[in-house]
Amino acid sequence: MKQHAVFLNCSLKSSEELSNTQALMDEVAQRFERRQITCEHVRIVDYQVGYGITDNAGPEDEWPKIIEKLKDADIVIIGTPIWLGEKSSVSKKVLERMDGSQEITNKEGQPFFYNKVAGVVVTGNEDGAKNAISSILFGLSYLGYTVPPESYTYWLGEAGPGPSFIEAEGHQHAFTMNQVKKMVHNLSYFASLHAEHKIPPTENE
Amino acid sequence: MKQHAVFLNCSLKSSEELSNTQALMDEVAQRFERRQITCEHVRIVDYQVGYGITDNAGPEDEWPKIIEKLKDADIVIIGTPIWLGEKSSVSKKVLERMDGSQEITNKEGQPFFYNKVAGVVVTGNEDGAKNAISSILFGLSYLGYTVPPESYTYWLGEAGPGPSFIEAEGHQHAFTMNQVKKMVHNLSYFASLHAEHKIPPTENE
Amino acid sequence: MKQHAVFLNCSLKSSEELSNTQALMDEVAQRFERRQITCEHVRIVDYQVGYGITDNAGPEDEWPKIIEKLKDADIVIIGTPIWLGEKSSVSKKVLERMDGSQEITNKEGQPFFYNKVAGVVVTGNEDGAKNAISSILFGLSYLGYTVPPESYTYWLGEAGPGPSFIEAEGHQHAFTMNQVKKMVHNLSYFASLHAEHKIPPTENE
Amino acid sequence: MKQHAVFLNCSLKSSEELSNTQALMDEVAQRFERRQITCEHVRIVDYQVGYGITDNAGPEDEWPKIIEKLKDADIVIIGTPIWLGEKSSVSKKVLERMDGSQEITNKEGQPFFYNKVAGVVVTGNEDGAKNAISSILFGLSYLGYTVPPESYTYWLGEAGPGPSFIEAEGHQHAFTMNQVKKMVHNLSYFASLHAEHKIPPTENE
Repeated sequence: MKQHAVFLNCSLKSSEELSNTQALMDEVAQRFERRQITCEHVRIVDYQVGYGITDNAGPEDEWPKIIEKLKDADIVIIGTPIWLGEKSSVSKKVLERMDGSQEITNKEGQPFFYNKVAGVVVTGNEDGAKNAISSILFGLSYLGYTVPPESYTYWLGEAGPGPSFIEAEGHQHAFTMNQVKKMVHNLSYFASLHAEHKIPPTENE
Repeated sequence: MKQHAVFLNCSLKSSEELSNTQALMDEVAQRFERRQITCEHVRIVDYQVGYGITDNAGPEDEWPKIIEKLKDADIVIIGTPIWLGEKSSVSKKVLERMDGSQEITNKEGQPFFYNKVAGVVVTGNEDGAKNAISSILFGLSYLGYTVPPESYTYWLGEAGPGPSFIEAEGHQHAFTMNQVKKMVHNLSYFASLHAEHKIPPTENE
Repeated sequence: MKQHAVFLNCSLKSSEELSNTQALMDEVAQRFERRQITCEHVRIVDYQVGYGITDNAGPEDEWPKIIEKLKDADIVIIGTPIWLGEKSSVSKKVLERMDGSQEITNKEGQPFFYNKVAGVVVTGNEDGAKNAISSILFGLSYLGYTVPPESYTYWLGEAGPGPSFIEAEGHQHAFTMNQVKKMVHNLSYFASLHAEHKIPPTENE
Repeated sequence: MKQHAVFLNCSLKSSEELSNTQALMDEVAQRFERRQITCEHVRIVDYQVGYGITDNAGPEDEWPKIIEKLKDADIVIIGTPIWLGEKSSVSKKVLERMDGSQEITNKEGQPFFYNKVAGVVVTGNEDGAKNAISSILFGLSYLGYTVPPESYTYWLGEAGPGPSFIEAEGHQHAFTMNQVKKMVHNLSYFASLHAEHKIPPTENE
C-alpha cells in the first residue's frame, strides 16, 4: 500500500515568498519520494485559519480543508522557523487547531491522529531548534501520533544574526543531512509498520 | 508623574466572548488603579495583526496602533491562556511583532521597550503557567523591558479538564491573589523608579 | 517472549523516604505486571551517579550498573517530581549520562536505546508536568527510543502550594488514572511490536 | 559603596578541568572589575552539594557555604553549558537549593534574594541557549532577583557537533561580546540603583 506524507510549513511568510524551512522540508520530501511515498506541501499562511480550540472556526475558516489532508496522511511533518528561540506562532496555531479536532475519530473510535507517524523540521539563523522540536513532538504525541526515534532535522547557524538555510547552503551541512536521512528512514519504517499493525483501542473506548 | 499600564490580552477569543484571562488581568488592573496607575486593555484578536518579524505588515495591519499604545505605557502586562501546556499562539505572534519593532528607538537610541517594566498573567484549566511565564518574561527581557521580582500571577486547576478561572472563583484563590499583590507592588515600584532613573545607553560607556 | 520494564525514579529523595512519584509509577507498574511485563524500580539517588557526558565517570561511579538495567529493558519509564515548574535535576543528570552512553551499540550498530519504548510519569504539587514531559520525551526520542502516543501520565494540584499525590489520593483522580491506562496500553503494544519488528539500521539503505 | 558579583559556574566538570563557560564568564568578570565591581567565582561541582528543596541537606552538605556567598553578592551570574538543548543538571540543582533557601530573609522580611540583580551566561557547541536562559531567568525572578534588560550572553556554534567556545575563539564573536557589554552595563546600573533604592516589603509581610 502506498504511503502519503503531508508537510505543514508554519513559516510566517506566504508561498509568494521563499521559505528556508521549505527548502529543508524539500530535502526530506525528495527522499520520501524515492521510497514511493507521495508528498503534499501546505503553507499554512496561504489558508484562512481562524483562532480557537475547535475543528471549525466559522464560515470563512479553511482549517477543515487541512483536516482532510491530515486524514489522508500516513506521515505528517511540521516545519517551523525559529523566532525568539522558539517555534513560530503559526505552528502553535496549528497545534491548537489540531487539539480542537481531537474528537474527530477513526472507525475504531480513536482520535484520527492515531496510527500515523510524525516528524519535525526546523530552520533558523540561530538557537532554538531543540526547544521547537520538543514542544511540537510533545504536542503530536499528546494528540495521538507515533513518534519514531530521531524523527526530526534542523539547521541553524552560530549565535546571533547570520545567513539562513538557503544562503548558507545548509543542504550541504553534514549533521543536518544525516538527520534528514535518519528521520526519513525511521518515519518510513514506522509508517509501513502501522500499515500492517494498528494500535488496538483501549478497553473502555 | 502618572504611570500608565497596557494589558495585552492574548486570548484566542475576541472581546465578544468572556475571557478568563481578562478576569484575572482585571484583578491586577484594579489594584494598579488604586495606586493612580491608569490602565488600558487590548484584546489582540479584536485587531487585524499580520504575521512577520516587522513593525508594519501592510496596509491592513493594525499592529502600528498597538505600537502606539506600547509607547505610551510605563508598564506592559501580557496575558495568555494555556493550550497544550504553553502560552497561546496569539501571545507568540505579539512577541514576534514586538521583535520586529525593536528598531523603533527612544530619544536615547535604545529600543523603545527600554525603561519600561513588564509582567505576565496566565490562566488555564491546568498545567503550563510557569512554562508560559518563562517564555514571555524571557521575550520581554530580550526586547529591553525591566523584569521586577515575581512579576507574574497565574491560576490553574488540577491535572486534566476542569473549570476555568471565573467558574472556579479563582479570584478567591489565596496563592493567585497573593501573587497579584506582589506583582502590582513590584511593578509599581520599578515603574516609579524608572520615572526618575533611566538606563543610560550603552554607547555612552 | 516476556517483556521487561525499568522505572527510573528521579526523585530528589533516596528510597528511605516516601516518594509521591513512586506511588504513581507503582500504579503504572501494577498494570504492566497484570500483562506479564516484569518491572524493576531504580531510585537514582540511591546510586552514586557522577556528572559528565560519559558512560563511566570513574571508579566510584555506579552509572554502569544502571546501563545494564537499561540494556535489559524493553520499556523504560522516567519518573520525576516538579520543582520550579520543571523536571528534577536528577532526571536531567540521567539524560546527560544516557547521552554519554550513546556509543554503546546493539548488534546492528545502533545506539542500544533503539527498539525500546519510553514513557514518563510526573507528580508535583502544581504546574509543570507538560514541560517536564516534553523535555524528557524529546531526550528519549533523541537517544533512540520509540515514543508511542500519549506515553505519559501526571498528577498535580491547583496553582500554589498544596498536598502531593499520596496525600491528595491522586490514585483516584480520573484524568491521571485514565492516562495510566492509555500509557500502559500503548507502551505494551509498541514493546510487543518491537519484539517482532526491529528498526533496520540506516547504514543498510 | 562597592558592588560585589558572584559567578556560579554550573559546568559538569570540576575546576581541575578547563570550562568553556568559565572562559565566557571571565569576559563578563573582567568588565565588572574595570567598573570596580569585585568578582568571586564558584565552580559548583567542587563543592558537595546535596539534593533536596532545603537550605541544609545534612552534615556533609556544603550548600550553606554558597548561601553565604550569595548573601554577600549584589549581582549573581549563573553560568551553564548546554546538554540536550538545555541547561545542565548542576544548574537545576542550584536552582532547587536556592528554592529551598527562600525562607532565609533579609532585615525587611523579604527572601534574601531581593534587591539583588541576576544574569546568565551560556556556552554550548550548538543550540539551546535561549531555552537555558529563559528557564534560569524565570527561576531567579521567581526567587526574588531583579532582572535587568538583556541580562545574558551566550555563545554557540552551528547545528550539530563542533568546537566549543575556547577552541572557536568565541571571545572574538561580535554578537556574543556585544551581549557581554550590554549585560555588564545593565547589571551594573541596576546594582547601583538597588544600592540606593530598596524594594519596600509588600504590605502583609
